[in-house]
Amino acid sequence: MSSSITTRATDYNQWYLDVIAAADLADYGPVKGTMVIKPWGYRIWELMQAELDKRIKETGTVNAYFPLFIPESFLHKEASHVEGFAPEVAVVTHAGGEKLEEPVVVRPTSETIIYHSFSKWIQSYRDLPLKINQWANVVRWEMRTRLFLRTSEFLWQEGHTVHATEEEADQMAHQMLGVYHDFVRDWLAFQAVPGRKSEAEKFAGAVYTLSIEALMQDGKALQSGTSHQLGQNFSRAFDVKFLSPAGVEIFGWQTSWGVSTRLIGGLIMAHSDDAGLVLPPTVAPYQVVIVPIGKDATERQETAAAARQVIDSLPPELRCHIDDREHLRLGEKIYEWEKKGVPLRVELGPRDLQARAVVVSRRDTGEKKSIPVQYAGTVLPELLDEIQQNLLSQSESYLTNHRTPVATWEEFKSVLEEKGGFVEGLWCGQTDCEKAIQTETKATVRCLPFDKEADTHEGSCIHCGEPATQIALFAKAY
Amino acid sequence: MSSSITTRATDYNQWYLDVIAAADLADYGPVKGTMVIKPWGYRIWELMQAELDKRIKETGTVNAYFPLFIPESFLHKEASHVEGFAPEVAVVTHAGGEKLEEPVVVRPTSETIIYHSFSKWIQSYRDLPLKINQWANVVRWEMRTRLFLRTSEFLWQEGHTVHATEEEADQMAHQMLGVYHDFVRDWLAFQAVPGRKSEAEKFAGAVYTLSIEALMQDGKALQSGTSHQLGQNFSRAFDVKFLSPAGVEIFGWQTSWGVSTRLIGGLIMAHSDDAGLVLPPTVAPYQVVIVPIGKDATERQETAAAARQVIDSLPPELRCHIDDREHLRLGEKIYEWEKKGVPLRVELGPRDLQARAVVVSRRDTGEKKSIPVQYAGTVLPELLDEIQQNLLSQSESYLTNHRTPVATWEEFKSVLEEKGGFVEGLWCGQTDCEKAIQTETKATVRCLPFDKEADTHEGSCIHCGEPATQIALFAKAY
Repeated sequence: MSSSITTRATDYNQWYLDVIAAADLADYGPVKGTMVIKPWGYRIWELMQAELDKRIKETGTVNAYFPLFIPESFLHKEASHVEGFAPEVAVVTHAGGEKLEEPVVVRPTSETIIYHSFSKWIQSYRDLPLKINQWANVVRWEMRTRLFLRTSEFLWQEGHTVHATEEEADQMAHQMLGVYHDFVRDWLAFQAVPGRKSEAEKFAGAVYTLSIEALMQDGKALQSGTSHQLGQNFSRAFDVKFLSPAGVEIFGWQTSWGVSTRLIGGLIMAHSDDAGLVLPPTVAPYQVVIVPIGKDATERQETAAAARQVIDSLPPELRCHIDDREHLRLGEKIYEWEKKGVPLRVELGPRDLQARAVVVSRRDTGEKKSIPVQYAGTVLPELLDEIQQNLLSQSESYLTNHRTPVATWEEFKSVLEEKGGFVEGLWCGQTDCEKAIQTETKATVRCLPFDKEADTHEGSCIHCGEPATQIALFAKAY
Repeated sequence: MSSSITTRATDYNQWYLDVIAAADLADYGPVKGTMVIKPWGYRIWELMQAELDKRIKETGTVNAYFPLFIPESFLHKEASHVEGFAPEVAVVTHAGGEKLEEPVVVRPTSETIIYHSFSKWIQSYRDLPLKINQWANVVRWEMRTRLFLRTSEFLWQEGHTVHATEEEADQMAHQMLGVYHDFVRDWLAFQAVPGRKSEAEKFAGAVYTLSIEALMQDGKALQSGTSHQLGQNFSRAFDVKFLSPAGVEIFGWQTSWGVSTRLIGGLIMAHSDDAGLVLPPTVAPYQVVIVPIGKDATERQETAAAARQVIDSLPPELRCHIDDREHLRLGEKIYEWEKKGVPLRVELGPRDLQARAVVVSRRDTGEKKSIPVQYAGTVLPELLDEIQQNLLSQSESYLTNHRTPVATWEEFKSVLEEKGGFVEGLWCGQTDCEKAIQTETKATVRCLPFDKEADTHEGSCIHCGEPATQIALFAKAY
């Protein structure tokens, strides 16, 4: 399991894979592009799920579960949806030893199968709004895969709502983007820019797509959550309609929104360093690991007993672990918990025991200090809060420092090349222009940021010189 | 959504489907045998999951996630495993617009794909025991499906462990059966018989299978959880081996164990009645529903305000709901919550308000009584405990009364036909004999119950007259 980690400066992509291996988070499965999420990685996902599920339920959304298998014909009912997803679906042609009459598709996303149900569930305006979420696996056959960021199968939640008016669906789409934005900030300790996707980058079948866009340490952007206003595109295709108070049949306005195990990739890249994973305390499987030290079994028994007393003095909701393995040396243990991103490591040796103190090391800053045992119960939770805050501050500074407004195409190219990050400029809004920019620089429009929506955008497009219609954030992206 | 429920006496199978529809638990999906789990049904599953996940983790097991897709060749590595599962797998032959070089199978169970990983994870005896669980969907193409009890796709948890010795694997298999047995008793309020499966009924690839077998109200048995001692069958096939302290390579001893959404089917059939679903409070999405009553909006506002005060006086962990919908009459509300199995319904009208009382109705017994508002906070939790106890007692009595020892084949047949339930008798242990019994009576060996293992079994087989080797429980089964 031991493996040295390539530095970020040497090879960022290899560093990312090395951190995943060193922290024992995940591995590829035997079928192309599939992923095994190992216990340490899965526990991070569980901790993310628990919090996000709570926040989703606070919006009045309830969970349900819909089938993995979708009749192939369903995909074809919404024209742009099939265009977007047909090239990457996995198809079951045989089952139970026989060829199927109609092939079934393994869900790449569940709009079609869920709205088939919704059309049966909804009769009247009294059934609205309908707000449903599911936690599920989905499959998209990808040519180039990367653990967590892009895998053939991934885990996610997908929310699906139906509303009586367009305005309400607009509000819902924005509300859920806000939930995601708050969640990654408060829980994953990274900052992201909320905004609207360009036409070329919106969800296949949506009227518009909103997203939060984060920046990784290599200056590339990561789309971290999306929320779609679907208008009546799917409700017309799947006959999702309701009887208004006046007795008129109306097609519902719909939204869908989701985040996935991709967020774990974002989490890794946002905070980790050349020594391995760095985790915000909120999602660390162990927040504190105590390593009792001693030159022989008797000493180690004494320090382990003291370690257990320290744990008893901590708030019970803290996730603590005593590493009392006998076959590993201290250095090996330190190295292991460092790679795995444990926020606080506590060492307790015979001398500390005598001094009634413990030595606490912070994973984020590397700081090490001795703390009287009697204060451990208050100091350790405070340190965890500080770590959480510090990681978020770092992310915020990085984002602020890597969002560069530019006025000319030359400036655009040089900032993108030399500094990376988000390049902000006036844009014409045309898909052809966006494609040309991508071909020339590999950058795409990440979003039209909300915080610039009200700004004036008089002037001409940074690339093609046509009249500008909006301010856009461009970046290379995962 | 309104639908009348067929009585159990008229048609038990139709009653079961009617209860599911009336309580709005689930529906079929468009692809044959797939299931949509609706919010009320899914919330029951979430409440079951939360408790069972806690109990599984208490055994030192951690969660992980493995791929949905298994290379077809993996299934063939364990001879009896492929024989058992090949006939019911769904096969993906095309993906990403191309024909796959090797077809992949949608997991029917994950022994093969998980043990492929385990062979990489385990090097030394220090890596053992390894105890992993996953919550996942699995697919088994079934000819005859029934909501929750047998569907093409279902949700479950599957635990997989590796041990250094056969004894340890034996203990693990028994421990997990104990976890399931305790869970269905304490949480789902039904009693089941733990025992060992016959050779014909054991898991494809296991050395032996343990199960808990419950009885439904129609006298048919439901296998409600299984735990398999896999011996070294899979470790040899997938090269799951470890280096012993003496430096010898040894194949691990393994177990696997699981329960599924089938338990919801058992829950429905164990407790429900001709008026609809009956839920034990532990898994009721709402444990208490308060219906404010009034002849006009002003009165209803007053009683609704009083209802909120009642809820504030209840322990915060209670799952309470106020039904203040304006467009439904009282009778319609009562009917709805009855069908949905809410344990306690509380009515609060203007007269109750004056008397500072509420009227509480129990779903299980139909009892109705007036309670002073000031005692609601203590009385309602007590009543919920009583309901939980009462449902379990009923299940235990039913099981005791429907487990009939028989001494002759004639007796066997008449008990099975007239009374149903478990028929207990001496058995030769031969698969041919079991098949003959099944052909003649539709009954199979449900298990060799642990509580009769130590009993003498001198005598001859109830059916074939050969020397008996054990005492078996026979029943017709789902």
